[in-house]
Amino acid sequence: MEKMEIFIAKTAGFCFGVKRAISIAYNAARESSESVYTLGPLIHNPQVVKDLEKSGVVVIDCLEDMKEGSVIIRSHGVTFSEMEEIKSKRLDFVDATCPFVKKAQNHVKELSREGYFILIVGEKDHPEVKGLASYAGRDVLVINGVEELDMIPKKKRIGIVAQTTQSIENLQAVTNGVLPFALELRIYNTICNATAVRQKEATELAEKIECMIVVGGYNSANTNRLVRMCRDILEKTYHIEVASEIKPEWLEGVKRVGISAGASTPPWIIEDVVKRVREIGDSY
Amino acid sequence: MEKMEIFIAKTAGFCFGVKRAISIAYNAARESSESVYTLGPLIHNPQVVKDLEKSGVVVIDCLEDMKEGSVIIRSHGVTFSEMEEIKSKRLDFVDATCPFVKKAQNHVKELSREGYFILIVGEKDHPEVKGLASYAGRDVLVINGVEELDMIPKKKRIGIVAQTTQSIENLQAVTNGVLPFALELRIYNTICNATAVRQKEATELAEKIECMIVVGGYNSANTNRLVRMCRDILEKTYHIEVASEIKPEWLEGVKRVGISAGASTPPWIIEDVVKRVREIGDSY
Repeated sequence: MEKMEIFIAKTAGFCFGVKRAISIAYNAARESSESVYTLGPLIHNPQVVKDLEKSGVVVIDCLEDMKEGSVIIRSHGVTFSEMEEIKSKRLDFVDATCPFVKKAQNHVKELSREGYFILIVGEKDHPEVKGLASYAGRDVLVINGVEELDMIPKKKRIGIVAQTTQSIENLQAVTNGVLPFALELRIYNTICNATAVRQKEATELAEKIECMIVVGGYNSANTNRLVRMCRDILEKTYHIEVASEIKPEWLEGVKRVGISAGASTPPWIIEDVVKRVREIGDSY
Repeated sequence: MEKMEIFIAKTAGFCFGVKRAISIAYNAARESSESVYTLGPLIHNPQVVKDLEKSGVVVIDCLEDMKEGSVIIRSHGVTFSEMEEIKSKRLDFVDATCPFVKKAQNHVKELSREGYFILIVGEKDHPEVKGLASYAGRDVLVINGVEELDMIPKKKRIGIVAQTTQSIENLQAVTNGVLPFALELRIYNTICNATAVRQKEATELAEKIECMIVVGGYNSANTNRLVRMCRDILEKTYHIEVASEIKPEWLEGVKRVGISAGASTPPWIIEDVVKRVREIGDSY
């Protein structure tokens, strides 16, 4: 019988910013005799966050009860007021904000200072986006896509910044929608290149296989987007966090399987998934 | 027999900048005892230019032989070096540059000063575009549309300015093409509103008629674009300069005719066209 082929996306898993944040966190935990804290999970991968917790990196929801200790600023960054609170409480902090997110925050600051109305293309409730928006003055709006175009006030000078994990198509669509009524449009293409390349590879892969498995946190924006983009091409696209979620029937009769993973998915989870897929393939 | 219906676009003909330029030119001719000159035709309408000539407004091709007298700077503006030449020769000049073109020139200057690579979306050989490009330093490229995208060097900071008579769709398409590789994109939507509204009205009109007549200079960029846009919708679209060009057979059996005209087409030419169409309609 013909053997199942497994295609693993080269760009699956950890991006530069996530790798950096994890290494910063483990180092901070090692160097501190007490617990260190992250305001919200360091990255959007529950399995990695659990492992970090074992090493002494504790997730907290807010700074209110924190009187002393070290805070690691997570990969998605924090809001302007959270940063102010950290400083005013004189807490030690280590900044693990992804440098690309940091850059986007600076662009928001700059656009705001120069008087642009700021449009952030992204998910309103995502911590990165909340952080970005907080660096603007009053004139800022987060929109998810063209379906929200009518929420944008008719301003003459509009600055656009994107959540780093957005798709270029969404940024293009919003830009197109704003262009007819804006006199000046200043766009920072803050979409992280790793995200763009990962999306491109995964969607190209989805074209030539029968089943796609995307691995990553259910709370991970970039993983969710990757899933949606692949599913637009291949209906049989599954989103899992860990290998044990794979149902053998997904792969029944399937000759070509593709695997990709979000930016916060660690190598060991991807390896487990590949192993599990191979086992199932061998069993048919 | 059913009478032919004639729909005349409300936005047909003279725009603000053209009206202003013509009034400036007639005034200058009236106030001067000698001839006044325009470097190239004042506007892109041969019939109006001819009438101006009778009033003493003479078209010249270059400033070389001009030692004295008054120059009217035409609606499309002049290049930076032509302006320098006018000043260095201490010629009198009256500036009839369309204020919207002037604004676009200033945006090019500003973008250039701030170090952007400048992209002008427009027709390379059009005097307005030549003028715009001349206000940039070295880093400037004129592109006509997306088919020329691969000519654009991969610069990080790109500024975009449009010829005032471009269609918003073309500006959007070019913006879309540049966005994936630019880190910062600063777009001035310099498309003149009158042009956009005229295009919208004409194309909407073309949807509900059987024959479209667009009146305007064959050298007029905005008229040519209007013709192309209408023809994309309605094959039976004719471009004429004057009423006598209308062929009765165009209107044979036609029940609904639309008429629009470019920004430099004077009211009297449009009236002649309407009269001629009515005559032909009555004759069937």
